Formats: sequence, C-alpha cells, structure tokens
Amino acid sequence: MELLKQKILECGRALDEHVLLVDSFLNNQVDVKLMQEIGREFAGRYAGAGVTRVVTIESSGIAPAAMTALEMDLPLVILKKSKSSILKDDILQTEVFSFTKNAPYQLTLKPQFIQPGDRVLLIDDFLANGEAALGASSLLERAGAQVAGIGIVIAKTFQPGLKKLTEAGYRVDVLAPVKRMAAGVIEFD
Amino acid sequence: MELLKQKILECGRALDEHVLLVDSFLNNQVDVKLMQEIGREFAGRYAGAGVTRVVTIESSGIAPAAMTALEMDLPLVILKKSKSSILKDDILQTEVFSFTKNAPYQLTLKPQFIQPGDRVLLIDDFLANGEAALGASSLLERAGAQVAGIGIVIAKTFQPGLKKLTEAGYRVDVLAPVKRMAAGVIEFD
Repeated sequence: MELLKQKILECGRALDEHVLLVDSFLNNQVDVKLMQEIGREFAGRYAGAGVTRVVTIESSGIAPAAMTALEMDLPLVILKKSKSSILKDDILQTEVFSFTKNAPYQLTLKPQFIQPGDRVLLIDDFLANGEAALGASSLLERAGAQVAGIGIVIAKTFQPGLKKLTEAGYRVDVLAPVKRMAAGVIEFD
Repeated sequence: MELLKQKILECGRALDEHVLLVDSFLNNQVDVKLMQEIGREFAGRYAGAGVTRVVTIESSGIAPAAMTALEMDLPLVILKKSKSSILKDDILQTEVFSFTKNAPYQLTLKPQFIQPGDRVLLIDDFLANGEAALGASSLLERAGAQVAGIGIVIAKTFQPGLKKLTEAGYRVDVLAPVKRMAAGVIEFD
C-alpha cells in the first residue's frame, strides 16, 4: 500500500536492525485518515471472502481494525491481554510470549462474541515473530470460527512471523512489508 | 444521545447497583456504526470549540475516540497504561487508581504529541470515580495543553466522577448519564 509506505518513510524511524518506531501515526498518535484508508484497503482485499467478524488484539490494532470493520459493515471483536489466567466457562485464553515486553500474557476471548461458523478477518498493527497472530488464530478456532485471513499493517518480513503463518496455511495480507532496516534505513519488499 | 440509550437498554446488562456490562457493543465486541454516530455527536458538540487534538486512554476509549477524531479531521493521541513508572525525559506519567482492577497504574503520555497551546478533547468510554479523566487532564496540562472538554460515552452519575470534574472547572459532555441501576434495571438522568 503505497500511501502507507510513504508515511513510514516520512514519519517512521528505524532505530536499528530491529526496532521501527511508528508512534507518530500508528501507536501513540494515530493518523485516523490513514487508518480509514487502511480499512478501505483491507475491506477491498476481503470483499467476497465471506467475512462475518473483524477481530483484533488490544490496543494498537484497535484503530485500524475499527476502520476496517466500519468499511465492511461488520462488528469488531477485541481480544484482551490479561496478566493472569482466568478459569471461567465463558472465557477462552492462550499464553502468548511478547518479545517486545519480554514477558508472557494471556490472550483472552469472550467466546459469546464468536459463533461457530464465523469467518474472521484478524487485523493487527505489527507482525514480527507471529506469536500474537498464531495465538489469536488458535483461540478463534477453539471458539469454532474459521480464519478467513490475517491483515497486517506493518510486517518485518525478515523475522519468522510471516513464514510461520503462511506455513500454517493462513492467508496473510501485509500492507507494508519491511524486508530490511538499519539506523535511518527502511527498505520494503 | 437517544440511539445510545436505546442500545444500552437493549444490549447492556446491569448486574447490580454498580456494575453495567456493555461488552456486547462497547468493550469486547464493538458496534462500529454506533461508534461512528458517537463520533459525530461529539464532533457536533465541539464544533467551534477550537479543538486541535482528540485524546483517549487505552483501550476501550480508542474506538469511539478514533471515530470522533475522524469526524473532526484531527489526530488522535492515546494515553497508555503502564505498570511501572518510567524515568525518561520524553515521558510524562501520573499514578491513577483503577477501582475496576483495584490496583494503581501509571497513565503515560509521550508529550511530543501534545504541543503547548493545543486544545484537547478528551474522550473516554466510562466515567465513574473520575480518577482516569482527572489524571489524564493533569498530564495534558503538564504538557502545556488546555482541556477544551471531556466527552464521556457512559457516566454513572451517582458516583463522584462527574461532580469532581465539573467542580474542577472542566466542561463534561456525557452521552448516556446513568442515574440508577439495580439487577436488570437501568435508569438515565
């Protein structure tokens, strides 16, 4: 997605080979017009894919996912990150390791909002190691849904996440695939 | 806001005098069309108020705040909840006590996204004790901004938050003011 790549080149900051700061338009400050364009892009790519729910993981995925759900005229379901595991019948959880925070969390779904037979478009802001997206997909499948696809705003394609997801059979749409970074350098696939 | 009140009466659940579950359209599952209407309502109320930034607190405030920012054609800034205090020049923090989680957290602002002279519309999903809104307002003022107003989706007006905010001199706009609850009963002001 050219508009997004331009924004990353203009406003993103590669600190080193691994850390890409996009806090001026995606994580802390949010360019909502750009999020609307991202929503339109995902909606266009998944038109006709029979999607019944848009799902994301709190909290940086919420803005692009909300715009996607709005464009597709579908409900949005938010998976929460919980510190502790909750043993309740109406909660599904899976442990996900966050490389950013170097700590695990419990990804949490209230399955009353996912029906067996739902076809889900999972939206997230970043893909690196793929732990969050794999955990979310497994939760959604445990709730009886199919994952129609995984829409990622920015993927670091030199890290293992994208390969893991495609090898697991998922359709993955990456709007800005970053193939290499260094201090001050960002290159797309 | 009549549409919102109707939705709360249809889909909300009052568990007792204090707990209102709105997870089917606001917290876990999000009715994004309703969020768009909420955004339009806030945008209409603050037209001409000279607002330069929409600000919210992660994560349930993000969807309504993103729609408000979209309608007002303004950037959105998200205040993060951090477990630990961070001693860095480019971070502003204040401790907020969460009555929901019965634990404090550090409300965190990257002040590079708030300029002195900014006029901020603070949007949040819920107002009860007012700790989060008061903490957010003080952070924004420390960054040199003025709080043009505080837009709340649902307020429990029988709890002290609304009174605290208005007594502190803030303009507060509540779309659904709940004056009384009991199991199965929700009454608006």
